Amino acid sequence: MGKLLIVGSMAFDEIETPFGKTGKILGGAATFISLAANQFKVDSAVVSVVGEDFPQDYLDILTDRNIDITGVDIVKGGKTFYWKGKYHNDLNSRDTLVTELNTLGDFNPIVPENFKDADVVMLGNLHPSIQMGVINQMKERPKLIILDTMNFWMDNTWEELIDVIKHIDIITINDEEARQLTSEYSLVKAAAKIQQMGPKYVVIKKGEHGALLFHNEHVFFAPALPLEEVFDPTGAGDTFAGGFAGYLAQTKNLSFESIKNAIIHGSNLASFCVERFGTERMLELQKDEVDKRLLQFKELTQFNIELT
Amino acid sequence: MGKLLIVGSMAFDEIETPFGKTGKILGGAATFISLAANQFKVDSAVVSVVGEDFPQDYLDILTDRNIDITGVDIVKGGKTFYWKGKYHNDLNSRDTLVTELNTLGDFNPIVPENFKDADVVMLGNLHPSIQMGVINQMKERPKLIILDTMNFWMDNTWEELIDVIKHIDIITINDEEARQLTSEYSLVKAAAKIQQMGPKYVVIKKGEHGALLFHNEHVFFAPALPLEEVFDPTGAGDTFAGGFAGYLAQTKNLSFESIKNAIIHGSNLASFCVERFGTERMLELQKDEVDKRLLQFKELTQFNIELT
Repeated sequence: MGKLLIVGSMAFDEIETPFGKTGKILGGAATFISLAANQFKVDSAVVSVVGEDFPQDYLDILTDRNIDITGVDIVKGGKTFYWKGKYHNDLNSRDTLVTELNTLGDFNPIVPENFKDADVVMLGNLHPSIQMGVINQMKERPKLIILDTMNFWMDNTWEELIDVIKHIDIITINDEEARQLTSEYSLVKAAAKIQQMGPKYVVIKKGEHGALLFHNEHVFFAPALPLEEVFDPTGAGDTFAGGFAGYLAQTKNLSFESIKNAIIHGSNLASFCVERFGTERMLELQKDEVDKRLLQFKELTQFNIELT
Repeated sequence: MGKLLIVGSMAFDEIETPFGKTGKILGGAATFISLAANQFKVDSAVVSVVGEDFPQDYLDILTDRNIDITGVDIVKGGKTFYWKGKYHNDLNSRDTLVTELNTLGDFNPIVPENFKDADVVMLGNLHPSIQMGVINQMKERPKLIILDTMNFWMDNTWEELIDVIKHIDIITINDEEARQLTSEYSLVKAAAKIQQMGPKYVVIKKGEHGALLFHNEHVFFAPALPLEEVFDPTGAGDTFAGGFAGYLAQTKNLSFESIKNAIIHGSNLASFCVERFGTERMLELQKDEVDKRLLQFKELTQFNIELT
């Protein structure tokens, strides 16, 4: 059982999809990552920040699952990060209606003493300087540092992003962001360039079109499971990252074969996340459902061709 | 070795991509289908129509490969179907600049006597009444009828299309067309509806995002091979269909496992087609290259997860 350190936002999300809308519900990258990672045998801790308005019930969701939240700063008199968005009919694009950074704007992450030797560090989408600050607090170089980021940081904090990317092992990024980061349209070329920037492994997330893993001359692809209905895509990318990081923290096996499996586990968990609003589906997820759907992933992708 | 009957256009294509442009070159659905199918041990014949302006050299390309062209009508004084198109920078979309149906506008396909007992019939994208006319000429029900179509026929010949779809086993269609045909956004739901319309197998082509195979409660997915550069997508869908049909005509095995393999073979051949303009790459393609890339497909998709 490995130690997994998760850094990222905890938030109130308010979501509208073609299927309905929510009030303010539990959200945030660290929330989705930790719930997904919790499907594996890991000892995990969340480093994040919330305001005094953040319900104890939401914190209990994590502590009930033995997720360490001593690194979650509860700012007196502060308000929690709030995001409101509306998805278009195809669920592939969305408009952000409100973003209130609140306490996240002054987030100064403090890694709990007993997680400064974590095996795996999962840096959720945040300001790259904050991500770098977490790496610098580690006692020794973790076995694996995974970083998620987005176009906003490419637009606004390019140099800080390039700097933190030098210090990580695996980057998870979507296809458009990979293109923006490298000025290469071809994802094969983009992944090669990103590997030269630091990370030995590049995971390119393509949403409903699956995810690609690049490492030297190796490429692996995992499709998204075709679903009858995608209900709410919020948190799917973070759930993917959480499953990915959680599996690797459990096995501590960093071979290419193991990282391939991590991609499948991440895709598998993400397929549940989108079935309900927010964290709803992840909170009730049972191991037998997860296992059953892993078999569906096998059926979906495995074939047996003999060369003649 | 099975008999494969291929019906579709033969054409002059004129293509512009971000990488360059061609003059009038060899194109057409039947051309791409037959060249791809020719990678397998099949006895194949093309039914098509061209004008007197169609070069003997182009016909020789097929006859040199033992593809029967007695069903290719060469119309005296007629001109060959001509298509001119320009691809956008992302190569995922294109503008049609010129379409001259010419002799294809009066195409009345005549199935050669010795292919009226073909095992597999591949109906390339054409007016659905012409596709139906071919089915009606068969001496007995072929083991397998595969049909390709496009949104143009949904817009203009809906009833004829619905009618021919009742008589086929497998439809190949792209994602947007599947949605248009069924008014379902979810491809899982769309595929279920299409199966109720006739075909027992539904193949949904997603271009660079791969292809899905649906059959009852089974789903199989084949990615497109990630390439450094896509040079010209023209003919990729027909090459996919040709590899798919060619493999099934060779094996005459119509199990789900076999049809999965056909999807992989089709995807594999399509990955070559896009590397050069028009048919260029397919004309020089060697078996060892094809085999090598099949291994890449395995590496790309195969994993080994043990449930714990």
